[in-house]
Amino acid sequence: MRSCMADSAHDREHVYRVLYTALDIAKTEDGVDGDVLICACLLHDIGRQAQFADPTLDHAEVGSEMAFDFLLENGFEKFFAERVRHCILAHRFRRSDPPVTVEARILFDADKLDVAGALGMARSLIYIGAVGEPLYSLAPDGSVSDGTGDTEPSFFQEYKFKLENLYSRFYTRRGSELALERRGAAVDFYERLYSEVNTPYVAGKAELETYLE
Amino acid sequence: MRSCMADSAHDREHVYRVLYTALDIAKTEDGVDGDVLICACLLHDIGRQAQFADPTLDHAEVGSEMAFDFLLENGFEKFFAERVRHCILAHRFRRSDPPVTVEARILFDADKLDVAGALGMARSLIYIGAVGEPLYSLAPDGSVSDGTGDTEPSFFQEYKFKLENLYSRFYTRRGSELALERRGAAVDFYERLYSEVNTPYVAGKAELETYLE
Repeated sequence: MRSCMADSAHDREHVYRVLYTALDIAKTEDGVDGDVLICACLLHDIGRQAQFADPTLDHAEVGSEMAFDFLLENGFEKFFAERVRHCILAHRFRRSDPPVTVEARILFDADKLDVAGALGMARSLIYIGAVGEPLYSLAPDGSVSDGTGDTEPSFFQEYKFKLENLYSRFYTRRGSELALERRGAAVDFYERLYSEVNTPYVAGKAELETYLE
Repeated sequence: MRSCMADSAHDREHVYRVLYTALDIAKTEDGVDGDVLICACLLHDIGRQAQFADPTLDHAEVGSEMAFDFLLENGFEKFFAERVRHCILAHRFRRSDPPVTVEARILFDADKLDVAGALGMARSLIYIGAVGEPLYSLAPDGSVSDGTGDTEPSFFQEYKFKLENLYSRFYTRRGSELALERRGAAVDFYERLYSEVNTPYVAGKAELETYLE
């Protein structure tokens, strides 16, 4: 697991947080196979490095097959390996391959909670720094764009296109509760950040005009 | 100026924000030379790339001499170039070379406001991502360290050693006011982030023990 982790937004601490959060959610769900869940949490991002090397690959697809092969090679039963494979395949946001087992739904929620709230903002900013993208883009009139409708990648674009909309997409009751508890921290941070950037921008640009006249 | 910017926490938008904030502060200070101030703001981080290439260099020292030479070569008067040089030399946190002119004090405050509040948290996280440092370190007992007393670099260490303590270090009245207005956003974000990381860590680790027994 550790040898396949790629950046400090998806480091081994992400895996441990997902594992611990999943075990917390599991307490309020029925019929959870703890071994499948723990195994799926530990292995859920092992496809990340392959996706970094070749961005056309989907780390959930690649990782699910890597985990399946790894488990069979290490003597796990086929049905066990199949259930872990499904969890990993289904942990990514998309319309196809939704999570259909309780363990897959828990992994999905635990992984999404790691992009919710203040933690989601922090991890997204770390990712932005790692790939060299900016905090925001400027609108055609030279003002700071809040991210809505942006075509260029930036933190504000990521917030408006992804981070703002994830809170209604949870499967478990406990996952939904935790997400809503954390939502306020993300909204507050985004609004404060936008205001801190935009306010001096607007005031200072006007002031600069008076110097340049 | 643009050719000397190095990373997305110190990109050209940092320079524009510092310029606009400085012009906002200048409105409430007496005897400001707007040309010196604007020039110093635009050139204040031109030593960054030299410091990145050789971390034993201080970007304020290098940049102040680069700016001085650049201004003389481009026909500015020596006294003008000297005042810009002082602003740039004195913009960095340290005991030696404190800002002694009104323009230098404004640049110092405007630059520090860009590491205050939500914006300071965001820029520090982008920097953490760019250099590949983690969000937090683990204490010897395996719990999440809040950053206090940490010896390894991380975002929480940066918060406890630097970001938390900057709010009393402003020189101008308007700069101090803006800093205190922004302080709450940084404190709230740090506390929420620590709680979001630590709470599942504590609960989940205990739960994992029950599975491993």
